[in-house]
Amino acid sequence: MEKVYKKNIRTIGIDDAYSENSKDAYLVGTIVRGNSLIEQILIRKIEIDGLDATEKLIEIINDSPKEQLKAIFLSGITFAGFNLVDIEEVYNEFKIPIIVIITKYPNFKKIEEALKKNFDDYEKRMEIIKKAGSIYKIEKIYCQIKGIEIEDAKKLIEITRRNKVPESLRISHLIASAIATGKSKKKI
Amino acid sequence: MEKVYKKNIRTIGIDDAYSENSKDAYLVGTIVRGNSLIEQILIRKIEIDGLDATEKLIEIINDSPKEQLKAIFLSGITFAGFNLVDIEEVYNEFKIPIIVIITKYPNFKKIEEALKKNFDDYEKRMEIIKKAGSIYKIEKIYCQIKGIEIEDAKKLIEITRRNKVPESLRISHLIASAIATGKSKKKI
Repeated sequence: MEKVYKKNIRTIGIDDAYSENSKDAYLVGTIVRGNSLIEQILIRKIEIDGLDATEKLIEIINDSPKEQLKAIFLSGITFAGFNLVDIEEVYNEFKIPIIVIITKYPNFKKIEEALKKNFDDYEKRMEIIKKAGSIYKIEKIYCQIKGIEIEDAKKLIEITRRNKVPESLRISHLIASAIATGKSKKKI
Repeated sequence: MEKVYKKNIRTIGIDDAYSENSKDAYLVGTIVRGNSLIEQILIRKIEIDGLDATEKLIEIINDSPKEQLKAIFLSGITFAGFNLVDIEEVYNEFKIPIIVIITKYPNFKKIEEALKKNFDDYEKRMEIIKKAGSIYKIEKIYCQIKGIEIEDAKKLIEITRRNKVPESLRISHLIASAIATGKSKKKI
């Protein structure tokens, strides 16, 4: 059955504070009500090219008012180089719907080549990427979903955004890019 | 003559990312339109108990779309311990009105004692504090002003806030406290 969402629902959007010149990398989570009111910000350090993003994301959600979150938006599943979030593991932990927002369609062949070349555990990383599942197109963006139907994901995106992506994700991107470089980048 | 402000004016709000356990401290600036849309975030490292906050604030404003800023809101003038912003110097640099928002009335006697006890250059620091000028009460908050009349400052605060303080300041506070401790504090 199709879901009906209130306008002022709480969602969290996750992006990474990382540039190629960064020595440190962080996951940044912003909780927004509806498409406008910022309620909370959470930050955790993650390893560049490590595999602790799933654990740190779980920490962030545990530290938030998680019972009130209607969705977790992720800016892709690849953070701080190739530090991957296993969205199945995160979903199993909280049963909160996960919506991965992708603004550029990924080149999986290139990703696989880069992983093979640089990581001994590339098979494990490829498995996390494959588990993230099908990619859906919604207007100008793409998404992957876990624990939610695509029609409901579309509605949630619509309610929570002012521009192209959910506001929680846009704000996390501004904060993250400011942490990484001193000045936020507009584009997401 | 009294000024009339548009609803969607741009202002910047400055707070510091610093807790007593922090090794590093930062100034965080958030540019908001009206009382809601976040446009840009800027971050600069400052020295704990140093005297570079004025210089770093000037850097932040220079790095922003400064011609469009109608006011600079500061969360007090004391950052990262006793790193002081000289609001006269900042005003002379940009001629942008400065409004210092104070939520607790300062105990100047205690401040002077702490400065005398801990800083060789305490006279210089006391001078910066004195230069910040008279403290006005506006409902539940206090403010100091430079380059603007108190009636206009009141209007600007009214237009740019959702709660007690201008939204740019509230967001900078959330970001700053999340950088300092991993999780934002609600109270400002």
